[in-house]
Order: sequence, then structure tokens, then C-alpha cells
Amino acid sequence: MEIADRILKGDRRAVARLISMVEDSDPLAVEALGILHPHTGKAHIIGITGPPGAGKSTLVDRLVKSYLLLNKRIGIIAVDPSSPFTGGAILGDRIRMSDLNTEPNVFIRSMGTRGHLGGLSRATGDAVKILDAFGMDKIIIETVGAGQSEVEIASHAHTTILVEMPGLGDDIQTIKAGIMEIGDIFVINKADRQGADRTEMELRAMLELSDAGEWTPPILRTIASNSDGIVALRDGIESHLVYLKSSGKLDILNHQRTREEFLSILGGEISKIILDKVMDGSKLDALVARILKREIDPYKAACDCIREFSENR
Amino acid sequence: MEIADRILKGDRRAVARLISMVEDSDPLAVEALGILHPHTGKAHIIGITGPPGAGKSTLVDRLVKSYLLLNKRIGIIAVDPSSPFTGGAILGDRIRMSDLNTEPNVFIRSMGTRGHLGGLSRATGDAVKILDAFGMDKIIIETVGAGQSEVEIASHAHTTILVEMPGLGDDIQTIKAGIMEIGDIFVINKADRQGADRTEMELRAMLELSDAGEWTPPILRTIASNSDGIVALRDGIESHLVYLKSSGKLDILNHQRTREEFLSILGGEISKIILDKVMDGSKLDALVARILKREIDPYKAACDCIREFSENR
Repeated sequence: MEIADRILKGDRRAVARLISMVEDSDPLAVEALGILHPHTGKAHIIGITGPPGAGKSTLVDRLVKSYLLLNKRIGIIAVDPSSPFTGGAILGDRIRMSDLNTEPNVFIRSMGTRGHLGGLSRATGDAVKILDAFGMDKIIIETVGAGQSEVEIASHAHTTILVEMPGLGDDIQTIKAGIMEIGDIFVINKADRQGADRTEMELRAMLELSDAGEWTPPILRTIASNSDGIVALRDGIESHLVYLKSSGKLDILNHQRTREEFLSILGGEISKIILDKVMDGSKLDALVARILKREIDPYKAACDCIREFSENR
Repeated sequence: MEIADRILKGDRRAVARLISMVEDSDPLAVEALGILHPHTGKAHIIGITGPPGAGKSTLVDRLVKSYLLLNKRIGIIAVDPSSPFTGGAILGDRIRMSDLNTEPNVFIRSMGTRGHLGGLSRATGDAVKILDAFGMDKIIIETVGAGQSEVEIASHAHTTILVEMPGLGDDIQTIKAGIMEIGDIFVINKADRQGADRTEMELRAMLELSDAGEWTPPILRTIASNSDGIVALRDGIESHLVYLKSSGKLDILNHQRTREEFLSILGGEISKIILDKVMDGSKLDALVARILKREIDPYKAACDCIREFSENR
């Protein structure tokens, strides 16, 4: 398919176009993704998340510049799961202002939820794939927030970085407790602000509560605005990659991820077939009306529908 | 099925037990939900969400007490989508301390994500159903946060209340912009704090940006800790219910919700069948390994799997 070939030949506009297609759940994207698939699996995928105001965008900006000095090619996907209606425009604008936009070795894309969160997670996974096939060495997924949405999106990453800042209220810290376990590296950004020691102490206390594996997540301090600590962060990320490879964890992660991706694609394809072939809109509406009138329960209705599906194939 | 009968006879422990079963995706729950289905569709479902610290729990507590004066039976589902690992324990503890626990006309349950967000949303929907069949007049779904997770969970409610408080930082307000459109009623709690006027002004400005339908969301002020404004809030909720009924919107909402619920059940049942019958664990692992080796792409693998599914039925 033409668009996939153009991506493999290095055409940036084709990359942007195919990402839009996966965002719109364009059925034509599937074929292109199939062609790109053999060219994927080489990139190191890095997730960066944390509360708004922690300075993630600046941190990503400096980290990318630091990788550019090593001649790496970097993809950035800025995801805003809290913007279901604005399409991530706020985050997008922030990113668009960056001077990284003119770098030939950088590709930046912002994504918001156009529909369901599940849709965003899958579109993010597809965007990672596209940038991987495009030849990016590192793909950074930046998300805003500290909730379940971020956990789902982080599941695409090999290395997940949680960014904190000193002096966040107790409430926010409490919420964050829930996602501690996904962090491979912790960063206290704006570390020149008051309270950095306390934040580090709290992080350490929480880390001690969680199950210690073979990898001990480091707690790093940065002042992204003047590039303090950025090289140490880059080194930390690379150390984690070395650990993932040497321990065999990278293979396990990739297997898990591919398995989940496959099952999600499978579910999506089946739903499409059912909505296209077994149930047209009016038939579905009639069935829903029967469920609403309590003539049939939705579980029985689903079983009937599955029977019809297999008889019609 | 025994558990469903016990719920219909008013057995609270059976309610708690069946909610645990839907949380655990216990296949036996499906049969019970089917039996309960004809007894549902009567409750008014109220969603309450907002950032941590806005005082939602106290607000819910006072609102429920106000409804109890009208002899209403109330179910409360406290959902913490940001606690994938703690199982919503933080929120749960807060709720458990409430003196509402000893009220015979109140049933309280806290839920966290045990697995996927999609799973939580479905389990929440099932818990609503169970409390509906149990004869609750009002079912309150309380969520913490201001992200996509809350939008998904709010989709179960007829009336959605967004709780703000004065003096939240600009960052948090910006994030909240994304979920303004799901609010039927806005509450500025802790309205005796400095900045309430400014918060109201900002809310009004944002509301003017969004599409005005037939219902104009009121902006109410409360000081939940001393019950100020609670009766006005209860009246506002009832006005919204009257509007939903008289405009025909309630039927539309229920139809949409049932449709989504049915499609989600359908997808879930099909996945279960595929994992049980078509693909056992080792077959799935082998297929994933082939995808990882780039011998086959996941889209083609899904098509093959669907073909096998329909041939085997």
C-alpha cells in the first residue's frame, strides 16, 4: 500500500497522515499497519507521566536534545487523556511551540481522546508502531495526569518515568500512590524548589512499601529549565534498557504487549463484523428496545447474537 | 438462581456478594444479572465527580441524609479509578467511617480498578444494576478525579454533578475544561473560601463556550461541612430529573446506555469464547511469538482467528 511504502522511504507527511487515520479508526489504516509490522520492534519506548505543572514538557524537550547529541532519532507522542473533547489541543499547542519541530531527527505528535479511552490507548499503540517502522530509535510517550488512564497508556512503554515536583499537596500525593508501581525511574523536577528532600523521602517510603523486583527504581533530581540532571536521567534510561535486555525482561514485556495488542485487535475486528454484517443499525435498535422493555436480558441477547454470527459466516 | 432471589428479597449480604462477583468477573454473576434485569430501570442514577480535596465525600454524605428525610432509599458506589493496585482502599476507608453505614435505607460500596479501566466501568454498571434491582431510588456514583476515566464512569449516570472548589490552580482548571460538557449541575463546594466568585465566573465563561442545549446547567454553592446549600442541590437534582422525563431525554439516555452495555457485553462474551474454545493459552502464546518474529501481522492473525472461530461453532 502506497502510504506504508512512503513511510518506509522516510516521508514525514505520510507518517502524520497514517497517525490521523488510526485516530479516526480508518479501516484503510489496518492494511498499512500490516505492511509496516515487519519493520517494527526496534525502538525503545519510553513513557513519561506525572501531574500537570511538574514540568514534563520541558523535561522531554531537554531529554530529546540530549539524545540528539548522540545522533538518535526520536519520536514524541504527547497524549492528553483528560481532553476527550478538545482533542488534546492544550498539550498540542505547548508542544507545537517547541523548537524541536524543525529538527529533522524528531517527529512530534499530540493525541487526545476522540472517543473512548480504549480507542486512545489503541491509537497510541498504533502511533508507536508507525514511528518504530519510520526508524525512530527512541519513542517518548508523554501523558498528563496520574490516574488509570496513564497506567493504560504506560503499558505501551518499556521504560516508564514518573515525574514529581516538590510541594504538591497531600491529596495529589495520595492519588499518586496508586501508580507508583508502574515507575521504573522517578524524577523530582524543579528540584531547586522547597520541599525536594521531603518529596524524595516520601517517594522512598512508598517505594519501600511496594514489591522490590530485580530493578530498584532510582530517584533522580532535575531542574529541566536549565538542563540540570538531564544527562543523568538519560543515563538512567539507558541503564534500564540494558537491564531489560540482560534480564530477559524486554522479551517478556514485548510478548505481553503483543498478546494484549492482538486480543484488542481481535475484539475490535469481531465487533466491526457484528455491527457490519449481523446487526444493522435498526436491528440493533430493536434489540436494545426489547432489553429496555425487559423482554430479554442483555446477556441472553448477546448469546443469541453470537449464535447468529457464527451461523452467518 | 439463589443469589438473585435473595437480593430481590432484600438480603444486603447477597448484594455485597454479587458486586464482588462482578468485580472478579465471576461467570456465575451473569446468570444472576439476567434474573435481576427485569427488576431494573427504576432508579435515578446520579454521578458526582471532581478533583481530590473538593469535599465530595462530605457532600455525598449530606446529600444522602437530605434524601433520607424524604424516605428515599440510596445506593452509593464510590469509585476510585486512580487506584489500580490498592483496590480503591483510600476512598473506601473514608466511606467506611461514615455513620451512613448503619442506615437501613443506605447501601455503600467502594470499588477500585482490579484490572482494566474498561473492566471497572463495566463492573460499576453492573453494581448500579444490582442496587437498582435491590430497590434503591437513587444510586450515587462518586468518582475522584477529572479525567477521561471519570467521563467513562459518568456515562452510567442520568444526572452528572461536577464539584469544584475555590482557589484550585490554573493547571487543574485547564484540565477540567475537557470534562465540562458532561456536567448537568455544577457545585462550588467550600464556597466560604476565598475565590468562590472567581471560580463561578470561570465556570460561567467555560459553560458559555460549550454547546447550550435545552438544559442550562445551574452553578450552585455549598458548604457541605455545615450542610449549607444541600437542599438547593437536592432540588436541582430533582429538577434535572423532571427535565429528563418531560423532554424525552431520559428514554434517549437509557437507550444509548443499554446499547453500549449490550455491545460491551457482546464483545466480552465473544472474547471469552475465543479464549476458552478457539485459543487455549499455548496456542495463543505460539501465535503471539509468530507476531513478534514478524512472520505474521496481528491484523491478519485476528482474521485467521475469527475464521477458525466461526468454523468451530
